[in-house]
Amino acid sequence: METADITFRTRKWVRPEDLNANGTLFGGSLLKWIDEEAAIYAILQLGNGRAVTKYISEINFVSSAVQGDLIEMGLTATRFGRTSLTMRAEVRNMITRQSILTIEEIVFVNLSPSGRPEPHGYTEITYDRDRIPTHHLTETLTGDAQ
Amino acid sequence: METADITFRTRKWVRPEDLNANGTLFGGSLLKWIDEEAAIYAILQLGNGRAVTKYISEINFVSSAVQGDLIEMGLTATRFGRTSLTMRAEVRNMITRQSILTIEEIVFVNLSPSGRPEPHGYTEITYDRDRIPTHHLTETLTGDAQ
Amino acid sequence: METADITFRTRKWVRPEDLNANGTLFGGSLLKWIDEEAAIYAILQLGNGRAVTKYISEINFVSSAVQGDLIEMGLTATRFGRTSLTMRAEVRNMITRQSILTIEEIVFVNLSPSGRPEPHGYTEITYDRDRIPTHHLTETLTGDAQ
Amino acid sequence: METADITFRTRKWVRPEDLNANGTLFGGSLLKWIDEEAAIYAILQLGNGRAVTKYISEINFVSSAVQGDLIEMGLTATRFGRTSLTMRAEVRNMITRQSILTIEEIVFVNLSPSGRPEPHGYTEITYDRDRIPTHHLTETLTGDAQ
Amino acid sequence: METADITFRTRKWVRPEDLNANGTLFGGSLLKWIDEEAAIYAILQLGNGRAVTKYISEINFVSSAVQGDLIEMGLTATRFGRTSLTMRAEVRNMITRQSILTIEEIVFVNLSPSGRPEPHGYTEITYDRDRIPTHHLTETLTGDAQ
Amino acid sequence: METADITFRTRKWVRPEDLNANGTLFGGSLLKWIDEEAAIYAILQLGNGRAVTKYISEINFVSSAVQGDLIEMGLTATRFGRTSLTMRAEVRNMITRQSILTIEEIVFVNLSPSGRPEPHGYTEITYDRDRIPTHHLTETLTGDAQ
Repeated sequence: METADITFRTRKWVRPEDLNANGTLFGGSLLKWIDEEAAIYAILQLGNGRAVTKYISEINFVSSAVQGDLIEMGLTATRFGRTSLTMRAEVRNMITRQSILTIEEIVFVNLSPSGRPEPHGYTEITYDRDRIPTHHLTETLTGDAQ
Repeated sequence: METADITFRTRKWVRPEDLNANGTLFGGSLLKWIDEEAAIYAILQLGNGRAVTKYISEINFVSSAVQGDLIEMGLTATRFGRTSLTMRAEVRNMITRQSILTIEEIVFVNLSPSGRPEPHGYTEITYDRDRIPTHHLTETLTGDAQ
Repeated sequence: METADITFRTRKWVRPEDLNANGTLFGGSLLKWIDEEAAIYAILQLGNGRAVTKYISEINFVSSAVQGDLIEMGLTATRFGRTSLTMRAEVRNMITRQSILTIEEIVFVNLSPSGRPEPHGYTEITYDRDRIPTHHLTETLTGDAQ
Repeated sequence: METADITFRTRKWVRPEDLNANGTLFGGSLLKWIDEEAAIYAILQLGNGRAVTKYISEINFVSSAVQGDLIEMGLTATRFGRTSLTMRAEVRNMITRQSILTIEEIVFVNLSPSGRPEPHGYTEITYDRDRIPTHHLTETLTGDAQ
Repeated sequence: METADITFRTRKWVRPEDLNANGTLFGGSLLKWIDEEAAIYAILQLGNGRAVTKYISEINFVSSAVQGDLIEMGLTATRFGRTSLTMRAEVRNMITRQSILTIEEIVFVNLSPSGRPEPHGYTEITYDRDRIPTHHLTETLTGDAQ
Repeated sequence: METADITFRTRKWVRPEDLNANGTLFGGSLLKWIDEEAAIYAILQLGNGRAVTKYISEINFVSSAVQGDLIEMGLTATRFGRTSLTMRAEVRNMITRQSILTIEEIVFVNLSPSGRPEPHGYTEITYDRDRIPTHHLTETLTGDAQ
C-alpha cells in the first residue's frame, strides 16, 4: 500500500490536571491521549469496535508543553496485516510549532467477539466513512453471552 | 462574513468513566468535551490563549450514545464581534450516524492579560494557522505580575 | 403549578483540577456539575432513576470563580409535562456573592426500563421524600434482560 | 455550645467511575467526597479559606451503595476550639434509606496565610452566611509573597 | 499471631490534580489512595477479590505534602478474624521523612459471591504469593447470575 | 554497572474507570501508571525532583487485565548516563501470573531548576534512601523566580 500523510484531528488544551509535578505536560497524560486516538483511528479503519493495542515502537520525547498550550494528534495507517493494523503517529505543540513526539509504529489487533485475533479483510487505508461499524459495541457484548 | 460548514475534528471513544448511572453517555461529560473544543477553536481564531465561555444558546439532546460509541465534535465561526467570537457546534455519533446535539451559538470573549474584554481585531474566519499564539500562556501570566 | 424558590444544595470547592488553562473555573467542569445536580433533582421528583437530559435553554456566564472559591448549585421544578420535568437552575459563587449563571429551563425525560419516554403521573413539585425510588437502578437493569 | 441536628446538603449520583472492582461504591471515593464537604463546611463556619483536615475519628461502614444510588452528606459543628473546629458527619443512601457511615469527629484547623494554626475567634455555630470569606483565596496567596 | 513490620509498597508523586485549594495535598485524595492500597493488601491475604472496607479507626493528620513530594503507603496485617482482616497502615512523605498519618485499624470483610460475610480460613499473615486468587473477579460475577 | 533484578512496588486494582470500551484494561491508563512509577524511581535515584521522560523503547502488550485484577509495576536502573538514567520496566498481572508488558529502556533526564539537562554525578544504583531530595520541589520553583 501507499503511505499517506498524517492527518491531525483531535486537539487538547493543556489544563492544570494534565501537568506533572514540574509544571510541564505529564508524559503519562500524553500517552493516554495517543492511545485513545489510535484506538479510534483503528476502529474506523477496521470497521470493528473490538481493537486493542498490541505494540508501540520507540518513543522520543523531543519537546514538551506547558499549561495553556494546544496539542494536536495525528495518525495514518502504514500497513494492514491479516489481523492487525499498523499506524504512524505524531503529536505536535501548536503554540511552539514543535513536534512533541513521533511513533513510527502503533499496532492494533482486530478481535472477534470472543476476544481472539480475527482477520479483518482490508488491505488499503480508507478516506471515506465506509467501514464505520453500524451497531453499538454493547450489542456484540450481549451477543457473546448467547 | 460568509458562514462556513462545520469542520469535525476532535473525537472521543465512550468509555465506562463517561457513562451516567443509566449506562448511557453522561450529559455532563458531553458538555465538558464541547466546552474544551470550543475554547481551542476560539484560541486559534482569536490568536489569544485567554478566551472564556460567555454564552451558550439552547441545547437539544436529540440522541445519545453508549459505551464503545465514537463521538465527533465540530465547530465553525459564525460571527466576529468586537471582543467576542460566536461559533456553531454540532456533536455526532459516528456509530449511529445520528446528531447528538446542535448548539447554534457558543460565544467566547477575548480577554486582556488582566482579564478584561479586549478587541481582537478580526472580522473573518481563518482556515490557515496564521493566528495561533506563538508564546506560552504562562509567559503572559508571568507578565501580569510585573 | 406554583413556582417555588430555588433551593441551593450541593456545593463545590474549586480545586486545581477544576481550572482551565487561564486559571479560572473551567466552564466544562461547571456544566458537568449542573447536569449531575439536575439529574439528582429530577430523580427525586419523578421517583425514577431513569431520567435523562433532553434540553437546556440558553446559558449566560455572568461571572466566574477561581481556585479556593465555594460554588453552590440550586434547582427548582417549574413544569411537569406528561413524560418530562422542567427545572430552573442557578449557580452562585459564595465568596463573591455573585451569580455565575442562570438556566431558565433544564428538561429531563422520564424513561421506561427499555429507555422510552414514559408518563410519570406527577403534576406538582414535592418537598417531601415521598417519591424517592426504593429499589436500586441495577435491579431494573437486571429486569430488562428477562 | 448546643449541638444542632445534621443538615444534609451535597448529593451524589453513583456513576461507573465511583465503583470499586466489586461493583459497589468505592470506599475511597466516599472518603474523598466527605473530606471535601467537611472542608466547605469548615470554611463557612471559620470564615477562612485556609482550613485543613487534622483528625478523623473512627468510621463504621454500615451499608454501601451501587450504581444509580443517590447519596447525601450531612455535617454539623459540635465544638469550636481555639484554632480548630470539630464536626459530626453522616452519609446516607437515599434509595435504601440506610445510613452508610457516621463519623463522630472531623477536626479542621484554621490556618494563617503562612500555614500555621491561628485562633479563629468563634465559639458558636452560625446558620447565617455572615462569616463567608469575601475575598478569593488566591488574593491571600498573592499576599504571602510580599 | 505475631505482628510484623509495615511494608511500604505503593508510591505516589503529588501532582496538581491531587492538591486542595490551599495548594497542599488534598486529604480526600490521600484517603482514596489508602483505601485502594488496603483493598489490594486484603485481597492478597484473603485470597479473595471480594473484600470491602468495614471499619477505619481514628486518623491523625500529622503532617502534609505539597506538589512534587513523594508519598509511600505501607500496611501490615494485625489480626485475622473469622470473616475479617485487620490491618495497620502508615503513609509517609519521602521528601520530609515525616509520617503523614497512621491508622491503627483498617478492617476489611471477606465476602461470598452473593455479597455476604464468609469465613476465609486464614489465621496468619502470608509473605508469599500463595493466596493470590487465580481467576478473574468477573468470572465469579458471571457465576452469580446462574 | 551491574544490572539488578526488577523490584516490584506500586500496585493497582483495576476499577471500572480504568477500562476501555471493550471492558479490558485501557492501554492509556496503563501507560500513565508506568510513566508515574518511572518518574518516582528516577527521582529517588537521581536525588532530584526535576526529572522528565526523554525516551521509551518499544512496548509489547503481551497480555491484558480485566476489572478486579491486581497489577504490579517494577523498575530497575540499567544505565547511568551523564545527565540521564535508563531503567527497565515490567508490568505484571498478579491474578493471571502473566507479564502484561516489558519495556527495555525508559530514559529520564535530570534537569536544572531552569529546565536544562544537568549532570547528576551518579554512576551506580542505590538501594538505600541516601539520595532522596530533602526539600520540596516548590522551594526550587520559588528559587527560579529570583
